[in-house]
Amino acid sequence: MKKLKRSARLVEMTQYLLFRPHTLIPLTTFADRYSSAKSSISEDLAIIKEVFELEGLGELLTMAGAAGGVKFIPKVPKAISLQFIKKLCEKLAQPERILPGEFIYMSDILGQPSIMNEVGKMFASAFAGRDIDVVMTVETKGIPLAYATASYLNLPVVIVRRDNRVTEGSAVSINYVSGSNKRIQTMSLARRAMKEESKVLIVDDFMRAGGTIQGMMDLLKEFRATLKGVGVFVESGEVVEHLVEDYISLARLTEMDAKTKHIAVVPGNYFDNEEVQNE
Amino acid sequence: MKKLKRSARLVEMTQYLLFRPHTLIPLTTFADRYSSAKSSISEDLAIIKEVFELEGLGELLTMAGAAGGVKFIPKVPKAISLQFIKKLCEKLAQPERILPGEFIYMSDILGQPSIMNEVGKMFASAFAGRDIDVVMTVETKGIPLAYATASYLNLPVVIVRRDNRVTEGSAVSINYVSGSNKRIQTMSLARRAMKEESKVLIVDDFMRAGGTIQGMMDLLKEFRATLKGVGVFVESGEVVEHLVEDYISLARLTEMDAKTKHIAVVPGNYFDNEEVQNE
Repeated sequence: MKKLKRSARLVEMTQYLLFRPHTLIPLTTFADRYSSAKSSISEDLAIIKEVFELEGLGELLTMAGAAGGVKFIPKVPKAISLQFIKKLCEKLAQPERILPGEFIYMSDILGQPSIMNEVGKMFASAFAGRDIDVVMTVETKGIPLAYATASYLNLPVVIVRRDNRVTEGSAVSINYVSGSNKRIQTMSLARRAMKEESKVLIVDDFMRAGGTIQGMMDLLKEFRATLKGVGVFVESGEVVEHLVEDYISLARLTEMDAKTKHIAVVPGNYFDNEEVQNE
Repeated sequence: MKKLKRSARLVEMTQYLLFRPHTLIPLTTFADRYSSAKSSISEDLAIIKEVFELEGLGELLTMAGAAGGVKFIPKVPKAISLQFIKKLCEKLAQPERILPGEFIYMSDILGQPSIMNEVGKMFASAFAGRDIDVVMTVETKGIPLAYATASYLNLPVVIVRRDNRVTEGSAVSINYVSGSNKRIQTMSLARRAMKEESKVLIVDDFMRAGGTIQGMMDLLKEFRATLKGVGVFVESGEVVEHLVEDYISLARLTEMDAKTKHIAVVPGNYFDNEEVQNE
């Protein structure tokens, strides 16, 4: 690459880092790329670091030494996320979202990549420090959330199928009871879809009693995999006893009455302390 | 926001533009944001524009006048995309990908957000000039491609379900014959999931005869929607007669022999002219 002026180099390095989250980039990569001295690169990184922090984009970690370099860790401050979630809660509380069977219509929200990216960034912030190999979800609605999260964590995604029509060679199937309708259902995952002993983050769009997530946790055992975290976009707060104890939720559906057409949605447990501070 | 130095402003504007593709941003937005003169902002944009073009990230369109501003159009040059696709073709041609029933195992590739983002950028480049309201796909494997594409085009995604268990109020179901196994199958879409008369881009991961895509096209009629384009990641070149005529493919499976364990995958029709130029 031809030698760039500092101004152009800053633009170039910014996009380079933004598209490579959780990836260690040796300073020599930049120095070679721009035919610049490492000292200039370090000065550039200091400027970028300041803006990323100011903007709530994330941290720029610099590691010294032979194996050193710089790593961009996307991390949105909770206070910024909370503002975003509060607006989403208002949208989710629209009466016309009430569906038969106490379901809530969210496809319009889940269908917006810009919202999914924000939500993915929140999960990536929440789970940034954990040692994770793969993000898992079950088809269909959790998929965009899992990809957005995985994208910011620089991890692959594994999608569990809701049937056993898997056409990908040998597969592991388990039965689970969905909390929503108490029916026994099947979920399955191809053997080759996930390495044994993987460290897994489970992400899903909605959790009522947690039967579906419990199902995925049972599936993990078949792969001798370890659960590293559970993130749900919206949880139903009407359930007294959850099958899953340790999870992060971004929003909580606290009331839904089909007769009076009343829904109430509040920020989830991820913001518990933040809420207290704000009020 | 406090007044930033030019260097910091460049970093800030770069990330701002990258996260808002296909969105018109008035110059006053930047001028107000950084308490800077419009002339300085214009100079910054010229620097960013040059780097974006040099890097093959896309175009920065500046529109003059009262309704003017700047718009980032992600667009990867075909020559860069072709290099990426050629490497993917090599990966796809690994003999262990052959599955019973002449399926090809792609879940590991579809499971990598970074690859999906690249592929999404290619579709966004290919369809950038078309007037599209929504990106449509059918569950399950096309979903990450649809989101990646829609993210770069700043559009919402609509996911067609492969059953009629839609729990989202009234839905339209159609029957279609999947080219893969000649069985009659059902796909459905909730009425509220897509506005009537929408302009639609269809995206899917794999196309054999095109029965599934034809099914989505039939579904469009029920919504009085218009097809604006079809993008498939991998097409099977072994099929003589496609049900779908006008589509863009990024890769083409030309041979698959389960006995000899031979697969051949070449770049798709998107690169047809590019290929000729290169060879």
